[in-house]
Amino acid sequence: MRSEISRRQFVSSAVSATAVASLPLGRLSWPAGENAASVFTVPMASTSLEPKDQGVLNLAKTPHAKLRNIPVHAVTITSGFWAARRQTNVEKSIPSMEKLLEGNGRMNNFRRLVGKSDTPQHGPVFSDSDVYKWTEAVGFALQSGDRPELRGFTDKIIKEVVAVQEPSGYLNTYYVGDRAKDRMAPDVQRWGHELYNIGHMLQGAIAYYRATGDRTLLDAGIHFVDGYLLANFGPAPDKKPIFSGHPEIELALVELYRTTGDKRHLELAGYILQGDDRIKVPHRGIVYHFCGIPFTSRTHLEGHAVRAMYACCGATDYYLETGDQTYWKTLNTLWDDLFNHQMYVTGGVGARSDGEAFGDAYELPNFTAYGESCAAIGNMMWNWRMLAATGDAKYADVIERALYNGINSGMSLDGTLYCYRNPLGFDPSGGDQIRNPWYDVTCCPPNLERTFASLPGYFYSTSADGLYLHLYDNSVLDWHLEDGTGLKVQQKTNYPWKDAVDITVTPEKPAEFTLYLRIPGWSDHSEVTVNGKAAAGVTAGQYFALKRRWSPGDTIGVKFDLSTRVIEANPRVVDDYGRVAVQRGPLVYCLEQLDQPQGVALTDVRMDPSQKSSSQFHDEFRGDLLGGVVVLSCTGAVHEKSSSQAGLYFRYAPNASKARGVPLTFIPYYAWANRAATSMQVWTPVVNA
Amino acid sequence: MRSEISRRQFVSSAVSATAVASLPLGRLSWPAGENAASVFTVPMASTSLEPKDQGVLNLAKTPHAKLRNIPVHAVTITSGFWAARRQTNVEKSIPSMEKLLEGNGRMNNFRRLVGKSDTPQHGPVFSDSDVYKWTEAVGFALQSGDRPELRGFTDKIIKEVVAVQEPSGYLNTYYVGDRAKDRMAPDVQRWGHELYNIGHMLQGAIAYYRATGDRTLLDAGIHFVDGYLLANFGPAPDKKPIFSGHPEIELALVELYRTTGDKRHLELAGYILQGDDRIKVPHRGIVYHFCGIPFTSRTHLEGHAVRAMYACCGATDYYLETGDQTYWKTLNTLWDDLFNHQMYVTGGVGARSDGEAFGDAYELPNFTAYGESCAAIGNMMWNWRMLAATGDAKYADVIERALYNGINSGMSLDGTLYCYRNPLGFDPSGGDQIRNPWYDVTCCPPNLERTFASLPGYFYSTSADGLYLHLYDNSVLDWHLEDGTGLKVQQKTNYPWKDAVDITVTPEKPAEFTLYLRIPGWSDHSEVTVNGKAAAGVTAGQYFALKRRWSPGDTIGVKFDLSTRVIEANPRVVDDYGRVAVQRGPLVYCLEQLDQPQGVALTDVRMDPSQKSSSQFHDEFRGDLLGGVVVLSCTGAVHEKSSSQAGLYFRYAPNASKARGVPLTFIPYYAWANRAATSMQVWTPVVNA
Repeated sequence: MRSEISRRQFVSSAVSATAVASLPLGRLSWPAGENAASVFTVPMASTSLEPKDQGVLNLAKTPHAKLRNIPVHAVTITSGFWAARRQTNVEKSIPSMEKLLEGNGRMNNFRRLVGKSDTPQHGPVFSDSDVYKWTEAVGFALQSGDRPELRGFTDKIIKEVVAVQEPSGYLNTYYVGDRAKDRMAPDVQRWGHELYNIGHMLQGAIAYYRATGDRTLLDAGIHFVDGYLLANFGPAPDKKPIFSGHPEIELALVELYRTTGDKRHLELAGYILQGDDRIKVPHRGIVYHFCGIPFTSRTHLEGHAVRAMYACCGATDYYLETGDQTYWKTLNTLWDDLFNHQMYVTGGVGARSDGEAFGDAYELPNFTAYGESCAAIGNMMWNWRMLAATGDAKYADVIERALYNGINSGMSLDGTLYCYRNPLGFDPSGGDQIRNPWYDVTCCPPNLERTFASLPGYFYSTSADGLYLHLYDNSVLDWHLEDGTGLKVQQKTNYPWKDAVDITVTPEKPAEFTLYLRIPGWSDHSEVTVNGKAAAGVTAGQYFALKRRWSPGDTIGVKFDLSTRVIEANPRVVDDYGRVAVQRGPLVYCLEQLDQPQGVALTDVRMDPSQKSSSQFHDEFRGDLLGGVVVLSCTGAVHEKSSSQAGLYFRYAPNASKARGVPLTFIPYYAWANRAATSMQVWTPVVNA
Repeated sequence: MRSEISRRQFVSSAVSATAVASLPLGRLSWPAGENAASVFTVPMASTSLEPKDQGVLNLAKTPHAKLRNIPVHAVTITSGFWAARRQTNVEKSIPSMEKLLEGNGRMNNFRRLVGKSDTPQHGPVFSDSDVYKWTEAVGFALQSGDRPELRGFTDKIIKEVVAVQEPSGYLNTYYVGDRAKDRMAPDVQRWGHELYNIGHMLQGAIAYYRATGDRTLLDAGIHFVDGYLLANFGPAPDKKPIFSGHPEIELALVELYRTTGDKRHLELAGYILQGDDRIKVPHRGIVYHFCGIPFTSRTHLEGHAVRAMYACCGATDYYLETGDQTYWKTLNTLWDDLFNHQMYVTGGVGARSDGEAFGDAYELPNFTAYGESCAAIGNMMWNWRMLAATGDAKYADVIERALYNGINSGMSLDGTLYCYRNPLGFDPSGGDQIRNPWYDVTCCPPNLERTFASLPGYFYSTSADGLYLHLYDNSVLDWHLEDGTGLKVQQKTNYPWKDAVDITVTPEKPAEFTLYLRIPGWSDHSEVTVNGKAAAGVTAGQYFALKRRWSPGDTIGVKFDLSTRVIEANPRVVDDYGRVAVQRGPLVYCLEQLDQPQGVALTDVRMDPSQKSSSQFHDEFRGDLLGGVVVLSCTGAVHEKSSSQAGLYFRYAPNASKARGVPLTFIPYYAWANRAATSMQVWTPVVNA
């Protein structure tokens, strides 16, 4: 599963020179197909990096990043929780999505324009982005060295894409022919997703370039930005205005800047984030699109959740490069709003189906929750950027929560079905099919694929003084510190099912640096040993700093507190009032009807966590179930008479109905809806409410 | 406030002859402007009625109606709760709405087509219906004899409307000019509201005809139905198919049949209710439009709530005329679904803003509740028809609940602002303006106006064996039994503020009949006396049958149980779990932030109705407040530390936060949002949840 690129010795990645910033600006004349890695070189101090050594984000020269990304290839996830998911992703999801994109006319949209297909345009205005997001997933898979055979037909797809580019740089399969006259018209900027498509194209191109050195798609993207956008659009009075109808171009432009060093790419992102009031949009449009007023004037999250999250990503990227404190202040305000008012316990965001939108503060319904997979991914992407800016573990906690729960739920265990919505309660009687192989608006499936493919890049970061460990799973890091010292770190664990992680630290030579171990916020009583000796001061929700002289073979033992946590929500969350959720480690659990005793309706069960006896959860690893999960069980209660027999409103009479004890069985939330259509709930009422 | 038409002696209304069925079918040649009442005559047994004596529904000859409507003019609401509301309606709401319709171009839409205006078309496709619904409100007001001066300019408006009718009978101000080619195209039938407009035109025309005898608008409506619809549309193979994109025409056609006696009007309603599968609509359209499959195949309420309620009205009307048992079975199934799963405690229906739709069973969110005013009105209209079919008090309970709460909340106390949504919880910080003078989709305002204007028609019904009393307020009934015996009934009361109603029964001569007194479902301990002697067997939620020989001046004393009721919801209603609502008499109460002590956030207050001391409510009539209301108060609790200071999720720890006692003040729900933008909630958490 690993390619040559990651098997090389750790010393070799830190030897070359020539900073990225020295690349010619504008459209680069890099010969297509030539391997960039053989030409780009990286200085020892790694202020710049070879493309193949650039991570999910290339923060090598980013002035306001406290943490810097490691390349995806630097971590090999060897076995266990994420290895299984990622193997399914690369062996089933990515290949089957390619067939679905083909079968649903997404590639013919390109071929039609060069006379190679006579089928009509297929799919919504943002259909090109499906191809680009899928290309990004392939890019990350190839960065890992996973399934190198994906390259052949992806090269072919990229050739078919760039064949459609017009001499001006414009590239889009929808605004062609009769619709060409509508390009970048104000209403089309609001709804037409032209820049959204190009944003995803740039992200896909960059990931593919970092994986392969192939700049075909990247050059096309640069041509669009330089030749079409920068030439025609920008601030008054010289240029035409931009309205970012679906934010995405902003973060892509900053990452393009990190790739080309062309400051105009960063400035264009800043201009778009600022908004241009020459395009008049009513207030509800400014809310919905999360665009059209200066980003720095925002005071809370609202409108379309994916748009808002992507805008926050772009704004954080912009802050990381500029250090603009007005951005930083706004980002903190918005993050506090997210964390204190707007995030599901699963890390999902966007409560309302209507407008796929954020609701009011504390508006977090469970059954009607939207919680779009893309929005949870956006949440993770944003927190990854906030984490880079600060090294604050609170952001890593959100990343872990979203990743293990609200994102992980978005793909079926077999990797072929996807959720668009990720509700926290479900009643199948409405006929809603929650997991589907294909959506005509198919944003979520390739988004999930690119996220899982990029996952090794999220395990560690480097800092000036050492290494941050963010995520736990069986893995090998093979990289170097920022001073160039080669470093391997191996994790052995059964996380998240078991509480222990054994870590071996192997610098190329003894060296003093700090290893920051993330202690998750949910782990009240964690133990850390170094070479067998207990370390003091371990605190939940913080990075535990182990500053010492590390020698090859030093060992760290970590033991987390995996006792089952019963959680309540802020009483302002009306939908969770009088209810509790169950979490074990990073995993939020849920009840599925089919695991409960016959005749016990999920809608009638109660928990009584105030009673010691019934708050004792039994945990059991069931290798046969749902790909292998720890199942939790406890004694709950159920009304003797089903509430379905009763009317809607009664005179208040607490405890009027008799209850009897029943065993309740919980499974991890991410694994729900993988067996049969059945009721599900994350939040269960407590008795006496 | 009463016109000549209602001041005549009770004998005179039952003297004339010539059944409605003897009218010529099709387009009638009634001379416009001539007073129909002077020509139409009614047989003694009142199987048919003069137009002016036809009620909200003309059920005089309806074979499957157990109860028959009394005319609106037969009841004078003299003073008190509804008199005040109705006076505001006729003096402020109806006149100001006329100005708004004019100012927003609704009348110019008509004038434009005859060259009398050069402004472009204004408003959505259903804008004509705003004018028709307003005309119906005027019709009912004139039926009451209220404000006869409304007639002059309404006659003028009607003339401007009918001037636009085409020789074919087609009449619509939107599908004209370039759009004329789209008339009744399948997609336009789904979304274009052509038949919806005509349905409201027919209802307006009938109400106006019953009030004035003026058939100008009625003849235009008949011309549309006979000349355009019946000539071209109907079952295969001869006619083109109909899809009822917004049900409304169905109930209008049945009422037209009750007016013309033309059986084709009833049959057309039946055909539309059956659906015609020649117009292909995807499943979600069949759900949303509540049309497109046989009505009798429905098993639950779903889709757009107003559409569903109007379809149920039409289907009940069709059942009342045909006795078709498959309809009756479906209607009962749907009603049980409404009553047991889908209705707010306010009588509002339609939980979801998305699609203005019914949700799943028990999906009744409070803050995001849609509860459109029109849907609550549809609920009342449907239950009025179910009540006519059965005489079952459960339907009257729903009517009262919707009328006093979810409908009454829809209009501001001053009669100039309207709610579209009627949520059961509100947070003004989102900037939502809940009451507005005008909506571009202005369905609710004139709908509220026609409902309040028609209210006298809902106070009583006749049956073969006597009289049903449905609603209590100061009023005089001046009508006759079905055998022609003249009868006056006077109510003196301070209902709903006080518990007593004094009723005087004055038949023209001593007569044996049954007077059915509605005992509301909420009145656990009601007392009834007849001529001072207590009657036995009074049961909540039933009509109490007083069968006796009634003599002029007999008195009935009724005393209801107005003790404050604390209500809980079925635990399946996740949004109400652990919460209680407060009701006194027919009125549901709510908390508004501005009535609570300084520094006590509504979001942090609790009730403890299991404690005797705090379940004792104090009630006080406050004449100075909100037009005069009974205010309720009790001792609640509030957390010492505001929940806004806390995060979103915690380890479960019941009663961890200290609480202190606070006085809580409740106002009637219908009166909320009449002072300042402030938080509101109907359902308040109980402590210990």
